[in-house]
Amino acid sequence: MSFEELWRDLQPVGRSASSGGYFRQPFGAAERECHAWFLEECARRDLPVSHDGNGNAVAWWEPDAAIVQNETHQYAAKGDVKRSGLSRGGVLTGSHLDSVLDGGAYDGPLGVASALAAIDVLRSRGFSPVRPIGIGVFVEEEGSRFGLACLGSRLAVGAITPGAAAGLRDRDGVPLLDAMAAAGLSPSLGRSPLLDRVGVFVELHVEQGRDLVDRDVAVGVASGIWPHGRYRFDFTGEANHAGSTRMEDRRDPMLTYAMTALAANKQARLASSRATFGRLEVAPNGTNAVPSRVTAWLDARASSELALAELVATIEKQGVERASRDRTSLEVAAESVSGPVAFDAALAARIATPHGWPIIPTQAGHDAGILSLAGIPTAMLFVRNPTGISHSPEEFAPMADCLAGVEALADTLALLAAA
Amino acid sequence: MSFEELWRDLQPVGRSASSGGYFRQPFGAAERECHAWFLEECARRDLPVSHDGNGNAVAWWEPDAAIVQNETHQYAAKGDVKRSGLSRGGVLTGSHLDSVLDGGAYDGPLGVASALAAIDVLRSRGFSPVRPIGIGVFVEEEGSRFGLACLGSRLAVGAITPGAAAGLRDRDGVPLLDAMAAAGLSPSLGRSPLLDRVGVFVELHVEQGRDLVDRDVAVGVASGIWPHGRYRFDFTGEANHAGSTRMEDRRDPMLTYAMTALAANKQARLASSRATFGRLEVAPNGTNAVPSRVTAWLDARASSELALAELVATIEKQGVERASRDRTSLEVAAESVSGPVAFDAALAARIATPHGWPIIPTQAGHDAGILSLAGIPTAMLFVRNPTGISHSPEEFAPMADCLAGVEALADTLALLAAA
Repeated sequence: MSFEELWRDLQPVGRSASSGGYFRQPFGAAERECHAWFLEECARRDLPVSHDGNGNAVAWWEPDAAIVQNETHQYAAKGDVKRSGLSRGGVLTGSHLDSVLDGGAYDGPLGVASALAAIDVLRSRGFSPVRPIGIGVFVEEEGSRFGLACLGSRLAVGAITPGAAAGLRDRDGVPLLDAMAAAGLSPSLGRSPLLDRVGVFVELHVEQGRDLVDRDVAVGVASGIWPHGRYRFDFTGEANHAGSTRMEDRRDPMLTYAMTALAANKQARLASSRATFGRLEVAPNGTNAVPSRVTAWLDARASSELALAELVATIEKQGVERASRDRTSLEVAAESVSGPVAFDAALAARIATPHGWPIIPTQAGHDAGILSLAGIPTAMLFVRNPTGISHSPEEFAPMADCLAGVEALADTLALLAAA
Repeated sequence: MSFEELWRDLQPVGRSASSGGYFRQPFGAAERECHAWFLEECARRDLPVSHDGNGNAVAWWEPDAAIVQNETHQYAAKGDVKRSGLSRGGVLTGSHLDSVLDGGAYDGPLGVASALAAIDVLRSRGFSPVRPIGIGVFVEEEGSRFGLACLGSRLAVGAITPGAAAGLRDRDGVPLLDAMAAAGLSPSLGRSPLLDRVGVFVELHVEQGRDLVDRDVAVGVASGIWPHGRYRFDFTGEANHAGSTRMEDRRDPMLTYAMTALAANKQARLASSRATFGRLEVAPNGTNAVPSRVTAWLDARASSELALAELVATIEKQGVERASRDRTSLEVAAESVSGPVAFDAALAARIATPHGWPIIPTQAGHDAGILSLAGIPTAMLFVRNPTGISHSPEEFAPMADCLAGVEALADTLALLAAA
């Protein structure tokens, strides 16, 4: 089965007829259908799949026993236990299948479909891995349902406690464990045995920017991820009648929010950072009522932790100043903050150099960042995105570039699993 | 049964335990329970209730047949058919029982409970009406479910066609007729026979401002209602990744909205008018996505139609200017616009003068405005609101002022129904 066919099968799942975007929220019907597609494709390739209690899965392509024995024997004979095939651990690739609300087709699924296709390529080349090659699927990478990005990989490496994760609820108040149970899973949150045999992780992903377009190449390798965070801004005022309340008598939190949203944009421009208010809840959200409360979530990213902290502090300060003029109040709470990720530089060079692929930074969080911070040598491959648009129905990568990505991933897996 | 008891019975219905505010949306469980309370109180007073096919109801206190006959005979003998009791029509009072989302206890229900209590007062005084006295309950006065304020009274007077009303849907997409049927009603939209015998309408309402506080009186009479409208502002941009999209590459409609909300506030202040963005919908409303669309509803009010049109045009102009800078677009559609209402000046003077009640304007829309525009002589009584707060859980009127309102309404009904 070609990559084109693999990809075509997945396209209709969770797609909105009106926007053309995807709604593949974790443990919902569409995301579960994507997961079933993954299981089917693994079965078609005789790749046994293991699940952990967090909802993550890995399909393993095991080396022939004879090869492993030979390798192990060879190094063990030299007393080099660390370099024996099993102790060095497997080569994990893969990505995620969930999407943001009304998201694109590529962010996540491209890494999973490419991994399946890369194994087809390696087999057609007659390649026999010395190390096992795994295709991982991590749940809730986007945080679109439970508000915490990379939830599955965080749980898997122990970067969030099971208790803290169990306290997460979706927008309808459904707790994580209930959502998993409703999807037919038997949750058991915590560090994942699936990662025990992982020696290196390589995630292929559509680029979410135009760096590769500017460089005129189809494939690149990631250097690292900017630090970033999500911050909840609670603006509180006083509900009142929109008609009869004089403007000067109001305590309208919408005004405080509006000024803060403009300030966030301005500060991010000035600092060459990123600041976005993309999610909002208004209470009571009635046309003829001055709102009592506006809750807005700030997504902020910068090239260093210091720059990130300064950006958020400046936005908060300007919001608080406006709140005192509006006689409203503002409280800011960090919901999740991720430090910078520097991927394994030697690994990136080893992957990129033979092909001349550029090594570029990214501002987007990924499961690869979580695994890297947990001490697993990690690399990322990016596939060119002509518009740079992502998290949108317009997200796109040309088929030729996707196929270049599959070849690049196959080459990389071959390099890493060969010895 | 005292007014205090009547009022106490209604207090728990549809009240949010967390905010203390009310959620009595039309044809929902809480509003239907309020309606059942009304029917029970009418039955307790032997007031037969008639419904129309719009969901409106009127309970009539009929004059003794002997009185009517005598009156009719008296004037008919003089050839003055217009002044005969029946042809002059009944005296309607009442208000509505629905609330805005998370609204207060008084806006609407105070007028219905006061009407029931005023009939108790008149009966205890031994008063016998010459004209019938009706207590009306109009549905969806707030427009909190179907987006069009005074829906019940508009249908009743023919100010909206049955076809246009049937096209209305709530936020979940439920059509009006389905919502009515789900509440056990048999809808038949259109001009209401309930109003055929109405000669004059008097609505008692909590004040939604602080005019009576400033004047240090408990009761006032309305002079008229400012023109006002609801306008839908659609800001359209392009969804994108909140991390990896450079600020200068974005087409973020949230920024255009934010500037427009601040402009609306500023323009309303400058013009001594009112402009409020209290309701918002963001798509896709995800923390890590630049929004593709922000839809916001403007509630605008001014002392004249010209001032209102200028206010909305200026806000739209400033929004469109900002949209061109943000590379977004803005489209504005008027969802409902109500012209100014001048209540019957002679009627207001007749009611207010004997008591020295002040005659004051209001910026809030009411069913009284709809009936007045339809040619029914109409008046409103306001009860003092110490904070002026309305459409909020904090909406309040002291019991002493509510009781003063009941007495004032009883006096007014006695005046109008006596001959």
